[in-house]
Amino acid sequence: MLNLPRTIEWVNGRVRLINQKLLPHRLEYIETSSWERVVKAIKDMEIRGAPAIGVAAAYAVALFAVNFPGENLEAFMKELERVAGVVKSARPTAVNLSWAVNRVVRVAMTATSVEEARKVILEEAVKIHREDEEANRRIGELGEQLISDGDTIITVCNAGSLATSYWGTATAPMYVAKEKGKNFRVIALETRPYLQGARLTAWELKMAGIDVVIATDNSIGILAMKEKIDLAITGADRITAQGYVANKLGTYPLALVARVHNIPFYVAAPSSSFDLNARGPEDIEIEVRSPDEVVYIAGQRITPEGVSAIYYAFDITPPQLVTGIITEKGIIYPPFEKNIRRTIG
Amino acid sequence: MLNLPRTIEWVNGRVRLINQKLLPHRLEYIETSSWERVVKAIKDMEIRGAPAIGVAAAYAVALFAVNFPGENLEAFMKELERVAGVVKSARPTAVNLSWAVNRVVRVAMTATSVEEARKVILEEAVKIHREDEEANRRIGELGEQLISDGDTIITVCNAGSLATSYWGTATAPMYVAKEKGKNFRVIALETRPYLQGARLTAWELKMAGIDVVIATDNSIGILAMKEKIDLAITGADRITAQGYVANKLGTYPLALVARVHNIPFYVAAPSSSFDLNARGPEDIEIEVRSPDEVVYIAGQRITPEGVSAIYYAFDITPPQLVTGIITEKGIIYPPFEKNIRRTIG
Repeated sequence: MLNLPRTIEWVNGRVRLINQKLLPHRLEYIETSSWERVVKAIKDMEIRGAPAIGVAAAYAVALFAVNFPGENLEAFMKELERVAGVVKSARPTAVNLSWAVNRVVRVAMTATSVEEARKVILEEAVKIHREDEEANRRIGELGEQLISDGDTIITVCNAGSLATSYWGTATAPMYVAKEKGKNFRVIALETRPYLQGARLTAWELKMAGIDVVIATDNSIGILAMKEKIDLAITGADRITAQGYVANKLGTYPLALVARVHNIPFYVAAPSSSFDLNARGPEDIEIEVRSPDEVVYIAGQRITPEGVSAIYYAFDITPPQLVTGIITEKGIIYPPFEKNIRRTIG
Repeated sequence: MLNLPRTIEWVNGRVRLINQKLLPHRLEYIETSSWERVVKAIKDMEIRGAPAIGVAAAYAVALFAVNFPGENLEAFMKELERVAGVVKSARPTAVNLSWAVNRVVRVAMTATSVEEARKVILEEAVKIHREDEEANRRIGELGEQLISDGDTIITVCNAGSLATSYWGTATAPMYVAKEKGKNFRVIALETRPYLQGARLTAWELKMAGIDVVIATDNSIGILAMKEKIDLAITGADRITAQGYVANKLGTYPLALVARVHNIPFYVAAPSSSFDLNARGPEDIEIEVRSPDEVVYIAGQRITPEGVSAIYYAFDITPPQLVTGIITEKGIIYPPFEKNIRRTIG
């Protein structure tokens, strides 16, 4: 059994989640019965990763529901709609957020009492949580076949257990390969500005006993030349019907380098990360975050006063650069538009 | 006149250089008559940038020479050889270092007294210094023609005035364009781990009144999609006879992105950065630096204890991705092997 703590749990009417801002130095939990606090955790990236924020969002709505005072169904549904809107707007790029909120709201539509609504919303949130874990396990089992003994794998950001309910997406194949006794090495790109790779991916892979080393994001070119890289796997925040992949900054340059150096480039994502209403890159809203998140590192300003930063939080990888997309329903290969429709649609 | 301080100067028998580790927060100088202290400054990156460390290396040898006790020429030449070796080994990738040391050693070869050797070595060091400044000014005048009013220019690391005697290489066209009254914007990639872009390029461009903004290194893909980038200019630590460009981490991925998005990609470097004895990428030694420089930011560890980093300090851009090389002898265009030989050889 791998030594990996639970990212998020529903415990006695409260949500308990790892405060990822404190990793890798301290493992601390936020435990709350306040849906607003969960929204804050999503906004402030105390929890992050598309699948994990989907689960957190569903639980946020569940917290609202179980704590709603009174039994007036009309008032409940009206308030539910408002809360759903607030939760969905916590972050813009990951499709899982609105997908999860829509699911828990939809089940409440047919409830005939507030009590019933509370019950079905919580059940649906737990179901989303469990489904995510199962999907990731399946992604791990499918993706594990791409890993050979002695491989060096490169990944960006944290599409890890911490980004999901468990197992992760990009990391799931690594965990399953580890369980099967394969030996391999992972290069985790540090992933500025939030350093998810250095802080989170390195932390959880190390917890699980996997050989991991970090590298700066700008070293992808020389790593491809100097290190024997066999495989690149990343997660996805949103995948369009045509196979465009929105994911953390640095994914697209990594895919480009991988293509030039003949490194297979795989994206691992559950079907909930697909947005079949989106087609091309123009259909994906790219979150722009505060320049201060770039300009300050560990409280220290890295650039002169008066100089700001451009900070898009994601980039978009075109389908031409993707070797395959590992989903719980199978690995999708080109032609992506046709095969995504067949597998996910 | 631009408001830019001198990177390095010879003042009353001492070397005075900006301690670049303290920028952008404090402008402080190191002033020393010890050649070993100058070598330490090169090793510890208190001064960095291929042309600047060439000048610093020449002055280090000059400091040795002027402070050599006694008048025994044979003893002087023997010690000079040892000192030259130490200085040359301070950092491995920039060819300017050994090029500059070889120049000052060579002029001493024909000296008939220690006094004469002291004089010719110092004169040669000053000459290297002045030539570098003049070459950069010429690079600026040639490269300025590539900049149009309203352009957005992207650069990596600091191939700026701070990396040279003055004007810089990649920045020289920007300074000349600024003098001519052109308005343009520069995106300085922050350049982990040392953050030369955020700390140094942003600092000196702002000093000169140029509109500058920083971005994380991994944002090159989304910047090419979302911002109107008209031109990429970088420096070079070493350029081979075939046109392979060793430069700071991130140059090669930037060149790849530039190619895919039809952004002209120029390298700016004086002829002293060419190493015509090197042909392909295998002829360039890539400096591997301490993992601690990646693992600690502002004294804080970014990854768990027990997880290390791979840190190559440079990458290599193949000539196929380079639009042109701006040198003081003209802008070199493909076919590079032939045109480099013609212009530099």
